[in-house]
Amino acid sequence: MSEVSIITIGNEILSGRTLDTNSVYIGQRLAEMGHSVRFRYTVGDNVRDIAFALKQALKSDVIITTGGLGPTKDDVTKQTIADVLGRKLILTNPIGTAPGIFIEEGEKLIFILPGVPREMKSIFENEVVPVLKKKLASYPLITVTFHTTGIPESQIQELIGEIEDIAFLPHYTGVDLRISRKTRKEIEEFRKFLKHRLGDAVYGEDSETLEAVVGRLLKNKHLTIGVAESLTGGLVMHRISNVSGSSEYFLGGVVAYSNELKMTLLGVKGETLKRYGAVSKETAQEMVVGIKDATGADIGISTTGIAGPTGGTRGKPVGLVYTTVSGESGIRCEKNLFNGDRLMIKEMSAQKALDMVRIYLLS
Amino acid sequence: MSEVSIITIGNEILSGRTLDTNSVYIGQRLAEMGHSVRFRYTVGDNVRDIAFALKQALKSDVIITTGGLGPTKDDVTKQTIADVLGRKLILTNPIGTAPGIFIEEGEKLIFILPGVPREMKSIFENEVVPVLKKKLASYPLITVTFHTTGIPESQIQELIGEIEDIAFLPHYTGVDLRISRKTRKEIEEFRKFLKHRLGDAVYGEDSETLEAVVGRLLKNKHLTIGVAESLTGGLVMHRISNVSGSSEYFLGGVVAYSNELKMTLLGVKGETLKRYGAVSKETAQEMVVGIKDATGADIGISTTGIAGPTGGTRGKPVGLVYTTVSGESGIRCEKNLFNGDRLMIKEMSAQKALDMVRIYLLS
Repeated sequence: MSEVSIITIGNEILSGRTLDTNSVYIGQRLAEMGHSVRFRYTVGDNVRDIAFALKQALKSDVIITTGGLGPTKDDVTKQTIADVLGRKLILTNPIGTAPGIFIEEGEKLIFILPGVPREMKSIFENEVVPVLKKKLASYPLITVTFHTTGIPESQIQELIGEIEDIAFLPHYTGVDLRISRKTRKEIEEFRKFLKHRLGDAVYGEDSETLEAVVGRLLKNKHLTIGVAESLTGGLVMHRISNVSGSSEYFLGGVVAYSNELKMTLLGVKGETLKRYGAVSKETAQEMVVGIKDATGADIGISTTGIAGPTGGTRGKPVGLVYTTVSGESGIRCEKNLFNGDRLMIKEMSAQKALDMVRIYLLS
Repeated sequence: MSEVSIITIGNEILSGRTLDTNSVYIGQRLAEMGHSVRFRYTVGDNVRDIAFALKQALKSDVIITTGGLGPTKDDVTKQTIADVLGRKLILTNPIGTAPGIFIEEGEKLIFILPGVPREMKSIFENEVVPVLKKKLASYPLITVTFHTTGIPESQIQELIGEIEDIAFLPHYTGVDLRISRKTRKEIEEFRKFLKHRLGDAVYGEDSETLEAVVGRLLKNKHLTIGVAESLTGGLVMHRISNVSGSSEYFLGGVVAYSNELKMTLLGVKGETLKRYGAVSKETAQEMVVGIKDATGADIGISTTGIAGPTGGTRGKPVGLVYTTVSGESGIRCEKNLFNGDRLMIKEMSAQKALDMVRIYLLS
């Protein structure tokens, strides 16, 4: 395992005008190749600071710089490199006009790359990776991210105990667990362990989304789905329809934001709205019955609740949400109390509704 | 103007598993207050590297660290600070459990902040900003971001010419223009200039979203809106309902993903679908008429198109989208050909539909 320092050059990065995605990309690719980034320096487009960072970074085995190579900035970076080291070789950059520079200084490898992400990635993959593979011994790791929902981070930690090299990545719609292992067998063992400890709370891996998992279950069972949304305002259907091929099982649905439309489009009774209110188990259940009727779908979902920030009362506070699923095995309705801003409450509600469909189809 | 160094602590940042949004936030906020970030160090969760970065950073007037303060990592960071400096004061952190630390070392100000963005922002705004304002002379710049849509970046550049200190921030749903000036008057002059050159293509400023602008126009004119979506699958309504208070003008709508639902819920004629297809001007127009009938709204919108990646033909390729708006002044329908992946095409279509409502209401 070799130690790498990254130097990012650019005033626009320091001031937060531009997000430094290059370092993220390089860090991930190096980790996959079994190398670790020890230091990252971010400096402005000036000789003094670039030289300082370069001198510090020379303690590492590999130094990669990005940025500071645009047509107008070329001289600054080149002059600094000349000052600090004294010699250079030009690497080819297959796309774009900013050249990359590769320098061997004793045992150390120095790569000077452009800042434009597209150009940087191209030169990194085509020029840097082959050099690293040739010059350095590496021990590539396999990394898998497991997605969970419905269990808080603290509870997951209790359930799985102390695990080596695991990253907890909490989102408000669930917690991701990332592990890196040397072999496929170790990954498979961890997968089984996680399934044993967390059960159905694990819904997918890596790029798999909850809506894709729900879609696969529906497709396998030859079922169709229809959706009735109130507070989520279309987000559930937006997510379902993000999956390529979703038109095979997603028929459509209704956003009934006003009470009027809950009655006319979903057949919710005026009496129900008057007696229990729009945010109630009773309305939620009539909505799901209504959407199954209106669309003819096998599975129906409904959401109704208070997204806030206004509209809450003592009895029905902001974040009170009913999520309902209905199919051949009957209706299931859950009462949730979510914490967060308007968009977070919409997102947690949509996640819950989709997850209820997944659990419904698994059981 | 004071010089600031930022130290980001966390193995997960170095390896690219987590994106360092904290530095971006801090960089932007400091720039707005007239301070500049000179150096940014990113180091792992270990005493040696934190100490090294801290010693280097002490050359600046202000040092801000983020991360390395979680319940399990507390001791590393605290121990390092103790080793390097010797004394500490505890700051309150109004949300969450990770404490912030504020240290004055001679003329230098050192802030040790948690890594969780929500906690960091809260403590930065409530604790750090007041201290910086009190202790440092600053020459704040006023920064405004203008949002445009419907005009490509190259055309904007032609229309406005060479402008000092302007940042072009292109997204695929529009281009943002960010400028910083010393006085409100200069900002106002630029606003007038932009209005003169780009007209209605400028739809908002700073945190103002297109859906918020559309919402304000609807509210001012006492109009309601109903939406019929096909390829956008609920995204248009999701965006409309993200605006707090949208229930005043947003009644709801229908996602008619299947042809069947286009007929039963929106009254599109079977003959129209057979003759022109679901992705056609004729279907788009019948959808918008149908949604106005179904919801009773003053303004109707519809979207129909091919989001891909499959389903395109030579005559109707992926990215072909019809967006339609209807109100008192009649129906307007646009035929668009968008480039991008499935989600991008959905987003560009939703943006276009919302922008057509805005333009419709302005004229």
